[in-house]
Amino acid sequence: MPRIQLSALDAHWRAANYLAAGQIYLMDNPLLTEPLRPEHIKPRLLGHWGTSPGLNLVYTHLNRIIKERGQEALCVWGPGHGGPAVLAGSWLDGSYTQTYPDITRDAAGMGRLFQQFSFPGGVPSHVAPEVPGSIHEGGELGYSLAHAYGAAFDNPDLLVACVIGDGEAETGPLAGSWHSTKFLDPVHDGAVLPILHLNGYKIANPTVLSRIPEAELDALLKGYGHDPLYVTGSDPRRVHRDLAHALDQALDRIGRIKAEAPTAKGRPRWPVIVLRTPKGWTGPKTVDGDPVEDTWRSHQVPLAGVRDNPEHLRQLEDWLRSYRPQELFDAEGRPTGQVLAYTPEGPERLGATPHANGGLLTRSLPIRPLEDFAVPVEKPGTTLHEPTRVLGDLLAGVMADTAGRRDFRVVGPDETESNRLGALFAHTGKAWQARTLPTDQYLARDGRVMEILSEHLCQGWLEGYLLTGRHGLFSSYEAFVHIVDSMVNQHIKWLKTSRALPWRAPIPSLNYLLTSHVWRQDHNGFSHQDPGFVDHVLNKSPEVVRVYLPPDANTLLSVAEHALRSRDYVNVIVAGKQPCFDWLSLDEARLHCARGAGIWDWAGSDNGDRAPDVVLGCAGDVPTQEVLAATALLREHLPDLAVRVVNVVDIARLMPREEHPHGMPDHEYDALFTRDKPVIFAYHGYPWLIHRLAYRRAGHAHLHVRGYKESGTTTTPFDMVVRNDLDRYRLVMDVIDRVPGLAVRAAAVRQRMADARTRHHAWIREHGTDLPEVASWAWPH
Amino acid sequence: MPRIQLSALDAHWRAANYLAAGQIYLMDNPLLTEPLRPEHIKPRLLGHWGTSPGLNLVYTHLNRIIKERGQEALCVWGPGHGGPAVLAGSWLDGSYTQTYPDITRDAAGMGRLFQQFSFPGGVPSHVAPEVPGSIHEGGELGYSLAHAYGAAFDNPDLLVACVIGDGEAETGPLAGSWHSTKFLDPVHDGAVLPILHLNGYKIANPTVLSRIPEAELDALLKGYGHDPLYVTGSDPRRVHRDLAHALDQALDRIGRIKAEAPTAKGRPRWPVIVLRTPKGWTGPKTVDGDPVEDTWRSHQVPLAGVRDNPEHLRQLEDWLRSYRPQELFDAEGRPTGQVLAYTPEGPERLGATPHANGGLLTRSLPIRPLEDFAVPVEKPGTTLHEPTRVLGDLLAGVMADTAGRRDFRVVGPDETESNRLGALFAHTGKAWQARTLPTDQYLARDGRVMEILSEHLCQGWLEGYLLTGRHGLFSSYEAFVHIVDSMVNQHIKWLKTSRALPWRAPIPSLNYLLTSHVWRQDHNGFSHQDPGFVDHVLNKSPEVVRVYLPPDANTLLSVAEHALRSRDYVNVIVAGKQPCFDWLSLDEARLHCARGAGIWDWAGSDNGDRAPDVVLGCAGDVPTQEVLAATALLREHLPDLAVRVVNVVDIARLMPREEHPHGMPDHEYDALFTRDKPVIFAYHGYPWLIHRLAYRRAGHAHLHVRGYKESGTTTTPFDMVVRNDLDRYRLVMDVIDRVPGLAVRAAAVRQRMADARTRHHAWIREHGTDLPEVASWAWPH
Repeated sequence: MPRIQLSALDAHWRAANYLAAGQIYLMDNPLLTEPLRPEHIKPRLLGHWGTSPGLNLVYTHLNRIIKERGQEALCVWGPGHGGPAVLAGSWLDGSYTQTYPDITRDAAGMGRLFQQFSFPGGVPSHVAPEVPGSIHEGGELGYSLAHAYGAAFDNPDLLVACVIGDGEAETGPLAGSWHSTKFLDPVHDGAVLPILHLNGYKIANPTVLSRIPEAELDALLKGYGHDPLYVTGSDPRRVHRDLAHALDQALDRIGRIKAEAPTAKGRPRWPVIVLRTPKGWTGPKTVDGDPVEDTWRSHQVPLAGVRDNPEHLRQLEDWLRSYRPQELFDAEGRPTGQVLAYTPEGPERLGATPHANGGLLTRSLPIRPLEDFAVPVEKPGTTLHEPTRVLGDLLAGVMADTAGRRDFRVVGPDETESNRLGALFAHTGKAWQARTLPTDQYLARDGRVMEILSEHLCQGWLEGYLLTGRHGLFSSYEAFVHIVDSMVNQHIKWLKTSRALPWRAPIPSLNYLLTSHVWRQDHNGFSHQDPGFVDHVLNKSPEVVRVYLPPDANTLLSVAEHALRSRDYVNVIVAGKQPCFDWLSLDEARLHCARGAGIWDWAGSDNGDRAPDVVLGCAGDVPTQEVLAATALLREHLPDLAVRVVNVVDIARLMPREEHPHGMPDHEYDALFTRDKPVIFAYHGYPWLIHRLAYRRAGHAHLHVRGYKESGTTTTPFDMVVRNDLDRYRLVMDVIDRVPGLAVRAAAVRQRMADARTRHHAWIREHGTDLPEVASWAWPH
Repeated sequence: MPRIQLSALDAHWRAANYLAAGQIYLMDNPLLTEPLRPEHIKPRLLGHWGTSPGLNLVYTHLNRIIKERGQEALCVWGPGHGGPAVLAGSWLDGSYTQTYPDITRDAAGMGRLFQQFSFPGGVPSHVAPEVPGSIHEGGELGYSLAHAYGAAFDNPDLLVACVIGDGEAETGPLAGSWHSTKFLDPVHDGAVLPILHLNGYKIANPTVLSRIPEAELDALLKGYGHDPLYVTGSDPRRVHRDLAHALDQALDRIGRIKAEAPTAKGRPRWPVIVLRTPKGWTGPKTVDGDPVEDTWRSHQVPLAGVRDNPEHLRQLEDWLRSYRPQELFDAEGRPTGQVLAYTPEGPERLGATPHANGGLLTRSLPIRPLEDFAVPVEKPGTTLHEPTRVLGDLLAGVMADTAGRRDFRVVGPDETESNRLGALFAHTGKAWQARTLPTDQYLARDGRVMEILSEHLCQGWLEGYLLTGRHGLFSSYEAFVHIVDSMVNQHIKWLKTSRALPWRAPIPSLNYLLTSHVWRQDHNGFSHQDPGFVDHVLNKSPEVVRVYLPPDANTLLSVAEHALRSRDYVNVIVAGKQPCFDWLSLDEARLHCARGAGIWDWAGSDNGDRAPDVVLGCAGDVPTQEVLAATALLREHLPDLAVRVVNVVDIARLMPREEHPHGMPDHEYDALFTRDKPVIFAYHGYPWLIHRLAYRRAGHAHLHVRGYKESGTTTTPFDMVVRNDLDRYRLVMDVIDRVPGLAVRAAAVRQRMADARTRHHAWIREHGTDLPEVASWAWPH
């Protein structure tokens, strides 16, 4: 190893600190070529200084190891609210100017860099998608380490450094992420180097990990499976020396682990660096008599009154000049050679790595023809299949065909087999680096199915994997996917922002398969019943969000193929794992899914040649079955009634076109649902969602929706729909109640339906099973 | 200590195992008085056997220490999907029969206990609210330890045992909960005894913590601040002996910690028990040639074909008889004296502790007269206050007045001060048991403000505290409260179910203060902007959920008082922390909040004596300000227009009465909003929520809603409303566009508004601040 030039490291660090502080405060006089005056100061002082010097330090030192070792690297900045730091690093390594040519690497560009920060119309204060080299928004805390692991999977040559703030370390998701060490394969995956940055404080409090004895912290990190390296100090020169050595040690160790991995037994102990430096280091020591450096008071803007308070202005000028900017930038404002001594070139730069703009690396997924997997459907409703099992074969094909490329993973909280996706295990194992026993099944060090009982980790790993350009699917219990509500919020925001950045290449979509859904919780009950994730995501940016409710196996295949091929979306697919009637052949399924919603002529009795008396709408597998059963009852009991069945796969089609790109124009909606006939709509989830989507339609006044209304418990499948008034008998009663003139004419039929519900209640109390006529029901031909 | 009767422990455990298996399988012949026949078997076999023997073991052994030591105890059953176990324990200790007299502690009652389990109309398969002694639903995993700590806070004599499954231990929230050791005060709080149950498997996989070396696990637990005790084995007699000793050691240690606490320096190392026993222990060893005991295959129902497969039936009979039921129950099916040798009496029983029916212990909160805190309002809109700061004084009063009783806590992720609730620190500190430094502020071992950067822990602690009968408030960033979406789902389900159980006493409500809201994220931006938590909770049971959007300081006081006095609700209060105009005096605020929605006569120009031309609705502080500013513009520019202003505090008032108990009848809605006039509604959150709530109203066709539509970034407050078309100028344009006849007459006014928006864009680009006319705006008098 060449001798480390500590003064070059320090010059880069001082330059970055200068640029970070400058972004927070200055709108003019960027190089301090004249004395600082109030009019050089921004009118609104916004941003987070406290974490910035630490982030700058890491940027500085990562530059060195990248350059010296030719190491391919990516950094996930957990404390990404320290946007000024990462922006400074990117400006210094030239990647910022490469991405945004008007922010030149000179005095004029520096001025614009300062001005734009947290300025309306400028750049956000956090490490957002706008920041080159970033895959991780610095807003909500908790997911940095999971993202880092996701980025490292199947990138064997990549080093993913991950700065974890001691605030973030208190979150549950981060605390759980440490156990990712049991899932990282040293042969096929890259290395993750966590850098736990203990600057001691959050917004207004000390942090837990900074205030426990070092022996306890050491035990904790060893308990997570790591070998810790410590760097502690506030003397820059010593910290530079110690951090450089620690990084060299860590990289040497990683190198050894990787070299020994092909023949090694057991799980390696990966290094972790604990970096203890003061919060707001090198900033004002005290302000108005209160200590600021090394306290929580440095979290945001340490000097708040700079425009009005001459003492604050003086302190700011002293602070900025303490970095000796004249030594760091030449007269044109360009960083000096010493500052850039360790800056890598080209795509090796942290701000320019293609892994952080993953779409650049994305290859289309090999998906075999759906014909290989589709179930034959001669007549609708005569055969039964478990839709997710059929999908499992499709996914197994993708897994097989990516065996060499390794760019597809399936994640889930221990439910792959239970969700009928077990076919995957013919072609890959479950990732597992811990101890195994002879009774274990499918565990494999190089497995590409990831199972851990943590939705947060599943989501975080997959996000990291997708953001670096690879493909995947998350299969989850429908109810518990709410655990990641807030994570998917952030991912959708990331995608929305990224789509507007021409330099960001589209990345594979985040695909959810929500199964074990609300209507089939026989083993569990009320706690496992919640179909509200669809409502949650439909609040988000319509350009990103897609929701599909395929009613059978072939429609699930068609929807899944579309989702796996798509880019920059969040696709939510809700599909059951229990045996379900096959309604559509593959060709019919493809057409139906392409349309997203359509009339099922074969099911209705309006025969297309006259207007229907009533429209029965449905979305979701269980509601579709109940609607078809209701249609059969109507045919039998009210043969004159013209009934139209409309099935909706792509739920956003119900929205107005101005509100969602998939929204159908009014004339199409009217053609499907009519403008004036009663529509009884059986929906998989909360019924008011359908009203929310369709309230602008002409026929909305005639729309009556049935769905889940929190009437849940441990019971049979049919009892669940009865409890929620979504059953066939209730739907027939709804038709009779709403079609003008039927109330009297069909009073006897209505009574018969009510009687059937009564019979159900009596039967289930006695037998604990569903009525035989329901259990054995099939579509009549 | 008396000598431990291992045979009595074993008898109780065998009895509990017998009862657990019986619940899963039997609908008749409960005591096996005749050979087992298919018709004795339930038609649907549902439930979780795998975890049950371990839970039974813990129940058995906790009984002993409770009885021998007279120890007040509560147990949180993390693997609560093992409902059969906890039901068995409760039936054995008599608390089940006390709660449900028809389930007698004899053969007939045992038969009914078996029959009802997971049977439609019976009891759920999980440890749900129906289970005596429980405060923790066993559905979604991750929150047991946080609940246990919440129960222990301010219960100095209580032992809270907490069984943590090794599946649950993989979740992020559980992983983060271990650090609760830094927040438990040995003087004022009870003890938490975690029992980490490593049975090795989840649904279909081994667990992480069961497959790491014991030295690593030991380091991990020590790193969390614990002193571990290990019990490992599959020989019942040895495990009984070792677990009894471990529990005695743990209780002795806890006793010493408590005794030394008043004078001790530093943080104690609390015991934790690691219990390694086989999954599905004592169940079938193999089924159809596959190993079952001690593998994941025992997770649910180990023998699935009992009704049809004679070999399975024989195996089941052997299994059940292996517990030797004739030794455990007398001829009438009553547990023998040996089985009950260690069973405690009365409220000491785990199934009968009042702490698990916390409402029994609840005392009304002392709340000082609001007059002590209200801001004087001579005229609306002349003074400014930070509403949450005013609320802070009220909360500080509650904190002061509960200093002796210690039954009120405020939790939040490091934002109490930032949310302007700092007045609390005059009367209590921030709970903190770790190291302190001279620069720290407000940290105190006995503090009742709880701050940790984990929404999961805040929520879990508070839930545990409320479920055991105490009071509290959770203040959170509005956007990040989505982190606990899934937790609040479960709590709402718990409350809904509990309300229907006459024996469960109402508990204090879960109160959220959502501040740092979407419209004021100056320091942060898009990642911090999400008002969707209201949408989320409004999907849930209307009998539980209440949502309030007080528009100013006095209305916030009134709403908060109501929430703090209420029971069995989840109250969501959305209120800003930034200076906000005072609109209503305290008396007016009380009246307005009691009504939940009302006409602000002083703001409108219809003067009550004629029908309005337009209604301007508003809900939320920022929308209210924009609506009032729009009203002022309309007065100035269109003085003839009759404008009515309706402010909504209680958002559920917009719903039909049949859908929410607060829903207003149609005639009242029509009286406020008219049936036929245009209504422009400015809402705090996603606009379609208002449509969802109001779609059944006669006037819905005329309702036009403005709100947040994901157009967020780091910018000024006024630019945020402009970007989302919620600003005063846009609202005036909306009025002109929608009131018949105005389009032409008011074209010049409309242009002036459009010009103002253009002026805004230009100004902010140049100055980075809001237009002076906006920044200095006040309500005209």
